[in-house]
Amino acid sequence: MTFRPLLCIRIDEETDLRIYEERHAKEVAELVDQNRAYLRQWLPWVDNSRTVEDSRAFIRNSLQQFAQNEGFQAGIWHKNKLAGAIGYHQLGWIDRKVEIGYWLSESLQGKGVMTKACRTLITYAFTELGLNKVEIHCATENLRSCAIPKRLGFTQEGILREAQWLYDHYVDVVIYGLLAREWQG
Amino acid sequence: MTFRPLLCIRIDEETDLRIYEERHAKEVAELVDQNRAYLRQWLPWVDNSRTVEDSRAFIRNSLQQFAQNEGFQAGIWHKNKLAGAIGYHQLGWIDRKVEIGYWLSESLQGKGVMTKACRTLITYAFTELGLNKVEIHCATENLRSCAIPKRLGFTQEGILREAQWLYDHYVDVVIYGLLAREWQG
Amino acid sequence: MTFRPLLCIRIDEETDLRIYEERHAKEVAELVDQNRAYLRQWLPWVDNSRTVEDSRAFIRNSLQQFAQNEGFQAGIWHKNKLAGAIGYHQLGWIDRKVEIGYWLSESLQGKGVMTKACRTLITYAFTELGLNKVEIHCATENLRSCAIPKRLGFTQEGILREAQWLYDHYVDVVIYGLLAREWQG
Amino acid sequence: MTFRPLLCIRIDEETDLRIYEERHAKEVAELVDQNRAYLRQWLPWVDNSRTVEDSRAFIRNSLQQFAQNEGFQAGIWHKNKLAGAIGYHQLGWIDRKVEIGYWLSESLQGKGVMTKACRTLITYAFTELGLNKVEIHCATENLRSCAIPKRLGFTQEGILREAQWLYDHYVDVVIYGLLAREWQG
Amino acid sequence: MTFRPLLCIRIDEETDLRIYEERHAKEVAELVDQNRAYLRQWLPWVDNSRTVEDSRAFIRNSLQQFAQNEGFQAGIWHKNKLAGAIGYHQLGWIDRKVEIGYWLSESLQGKGVMTKACRTLITYAFTELGLNKVEIHCATENLRSCAIPKRLGFTQEGILREAQWLYDHYVDVVIYGLLAREWQG
Amino acid sequence: MTFRPLLCIRIDEETDLRIYEERHAKEVAELVDQNRAYLRQWLPWVDNSRTVEDSRAFIRNSLQQFAQNEGFQAGIWHKNKLAGAIGYHQLGWIDRKVEIGYWLSESLQGKGVMTKACRTLITYAFTELGLNKVEIHCATENLRSCAIPKRLGFTQEGILREAQWLYDHYVDVVIYGLLAREWQG
Repeated sequence: MTFRPLLCIRIDEETDLRIYEERHAKEVAELVDQNRAYLRQWLPWVDNSRTVEDSRAFIRNSLQQFAQNEGFQAGIWHKNKLAGAIGYHQLGWIDRKVEIGYWLSESLQGKGVMTKACRTLITYAFTELGLNKVEIHCATENLRSCAIPKRLGFTQEGILREAQWLYDHYVDVVIYGLLAREWQG
Repeated sequence: MTFRPLLCIRIDEETDLRIYEERHAKEVAELVDQNRAYLRQWLPWVDNSRTVEDSRAFIRNSLQQFAQNEGFQAGIWHKNKLAGAIGYHQLGWIDRKVEIGYWLSESLQGKGVMTKACRTLITYAFTELGLNKVEIHCATENLRSCAIPKRLGFTQEGILREAQWLYDHYVDVVIYGLLAREWQG
Repeated sequence: MTFRPLLCIRIDEETDLRIYEERHAKEVAELVDQNRAYLRQWLPWVDNSRTVEDSRAFIRNSLQQFAQNEGFQAGIWHKNKLAGAIGYHQLGWIDRKVEIGYWLSESLQGKGVMTKACRTLITYAFTELGLNKVEIHCATENLRSCAIPKRLGFTQEGILREAQWLYDHYVDVVIYGLLAREWQG
Repeated sequence: MTFRPLLCIRIDEETDLRIYEERHAKEVAELVDQNRAYLRQWLPWVDNSRTVEDSRAFIRNSLQQFAQNEGFQAGIWHKNKLAGAIGYHQLGWIDRKVEIGYWLSESLQGKGVMTKACRTLITYAFTELGLNKVEIHCATENLRSCAIPKRLGFTQEGILREAQWLYDHYVDVVIYGLLAREWQG
Repeated sequence: MTFRPLLCIRIDEETDLRIYEERHAKEVAELVDQNRAYLRQWLPWVDNSRTVEDSRAFIRNSLQQFAQNEGFQAGIWHKNKLAGAIGYHQLGWIDRKVEIGYWLSESLQGKGVMTKACRTLITYAFTELGLNKVEIHCATENLRSCAIPKRLGFTQEGILREAQWLYDHYVDVVIYGLLAREWQG
Repeated sequence: MTFRPLLCIRIDEETDLRIYEERHAKEVAELVDQNRAYLRQWLPWVDNSRTVEDSRAFIRNSLQQFAQNEGFQAGIWHKNKLAGAIGYHQLGWIDRKVEIGYWLSESLQGKGVMTKACRTLITYAFTELGLNKVEIHCATENLRSCAIPKRLGFTQEGILREAQWLYDHYVDVVIYGLLAREWQG
């Protein structure tokens, strides 16, 4: 990995996180497009993300989120190619709580990339942002996604019935929670 | 109850719901003030609601919410006096889901007023808005508040640990859920 | 009339007013379309209201008006079908004055529906909003429309020459005024 | 009159109109202050215009009006000193109609300054803006103000009862109208 | 020149400046279109100005600039026909400095029109706005444009290499500056 | 340097750049305060930056700049203490040009910190943003600041007379320019 962008968070020798910027819009759109059927299984926004302009709009929103001190969205770059995304959602400064969401291209699955990326954003949430709790929400049947909070020591706190609409059916959503004092880093 | 406002939802002979409007700001502020210590036990916004201007700002926001098709906030009026409030939060049209929140002055407790008010907003959510799920979130130790979803047939779906900061400590929050097909009206 | 919406103002056994909400857009557009030639005789906005999206935009604006404490627009529903509209315009809190505007589908004419609806909004203006004056403006040759303020005891206060452009010609506009102290209810 | 600003409308040798700009705020505030009791007799905004900042805010709004193609507000300058103001209100492009409003310092009364200023804005409305009608609204008892539209050939079109609140009482308002084809220039 | 608009700055018997207003959009678009190839040599915005709507958008922006007290853009009218434009850019109230930009239709070149127009805006900047410095920026090879600040006594203060992109190549930009105390009027 | 924030650009073993975020506001305000007299010699904004709230407002603006794809402002952190700032200004995507501005606390002067920080932002501008030119503007008499572009191979392109107002006097500003093809890294 000879090129390393100046502003990034290194995950491992081959992988880094880069805050979403407009200049990434084309790569985001292409990756979504290549993984469309795969991502559509569990992510509700895939059908509304069809063009580079859609990706740019999402990125602009996520930069507004960062500008308003409500966390950020980052691309996951593996060997200098975009491979997925991870970010903060619903950051609440009063309750000192945030949710982490993520997705990864099919071809990168099974290498532990997302677990490392989550670990980084959890540490950032507790150490730099000073939060008290991180949550991860997954569809109950999305086993791959559920495996991550389990592996990282989260507690299952509830299953919200029919909490999310996925194009043509509802899915139940499991909430995993991790408190700052429980985090081993 | 001789006077009955033109735009309201009747709950029972003595009680109705009125969408919050600016002209109610003074009465909202006074009621919060009279019940300050009582409400502060479980509601995180009480310390930030001190003046009529604070109430007016809240009302303006809630009217924006209504204007943006995201539900509404209403005052609960008993014998033509403001007695509490109830409203929709986090209305999601894609997931067809909404949360109901409420508070009632101490003096009106125990008369079943809030159960009726909830019943009305649940019916409205399922019948007029066509939603699929209503949630109610309460601090686990707020027994009075928890009693309402239990009485109305909600299912307990989870307990989110330390999910809310109440001035000087965290409280766990229990999530109750009710699906449209479960509602008896 | 078995179904009665929760949030409405009852006019008579068969008729009620419902504050315009986005979910009414389709019915508004259809009714305008069915009465296009009829309404176009006296209303200047008909040619610009062609699609459901146009109706939705109008409704959004009218909800902003409500959110800004400047009155509201309501649909007139007869036997649970939209039949027309009525609303406040130019509400001035300093001068405590408002204008009422309205239109009704051709098939409902002659039943006194609009007179009742006006009566309701006049009472609301004087009793709940505390205004001092209600005005109604009609094209001088729109006899049906002029009949309503006459019937309700308004005073003719002037005729503004060529005050309104109706697609291809100007019409004179008569102003009717009613003071709070003149209202019999 | 040796100094003549570059951007102005000349009324006569000693008088010109200058579109309100922020740099005039101090002079506007001072003139209002010197004529406070005099202006307060007929103008409802005087009590809310107390500081240079108030005048600046009004000027900013009037520049927004100009930027949105809805007419302008101008200062009346006599011998290079601000003496009053005149401007367009309620410009309607569809109805091709506008209202002209004005006020003049007490010391300049009786010299025909305002009649000339009105003449200029009427000509501008008909010739450059292509409007069809100009209205002037005055309190019925404001004889000095009413004299101007009469002198300029306007027709009295109505008297709106209690149409304006002046601090502690209502006044009736007379509407004068002039059509483009009636204007002699 | 029988018609003279009421609000304009006279340059000479045949020429005046008129603050850009929306009603000029058609004439601006036509003039740009007629001079497209000519203007495109030195102006970077020509390819993005194709329709009346583009001109209207530019004019709206320039009126916002005026409303925000940051100078104005004006059309140059010769014998009552639009012939070009001139305006202020980058007005800085703290540094009391402004840049003047301009363009003229090919057919009007060589008559001294632009030199007179610049003279007017320079005088306005120093006399009415009280600025300390006026700058003019031109591509080094745009000899016709460079001739104007030279003729008016500006000092060449620098040449910024490759400072502007003109569709397919960079041009160097020369900065001319004139201080208030150097201006002869 | 044991603590290293996750999102930063490393300059050397002891120094890194961190994009300004709201949580840095207190440290920014304190550093400006400690260096007030020193910074005031050459920076025009110092008198307007007095409170933590002022710093927060500046940071919010700079995050908006980042969100709008117009570059960013970063703190310079030395041994985990804030020591200064550096950022992009006037980023022009069409001309592919940007200006770099910076300031450093007095105590860190003379260690080459700012030269390294500039080197980083220049590389970022050419390599990641794909720009064609970087400019640095300094007051001619600010020798310390001028030394940096000279040391980094910039070309002096002009001296703008009285281009900046510094509280009570004007200063001349020298413009240094560097083209992408001239950069040695």
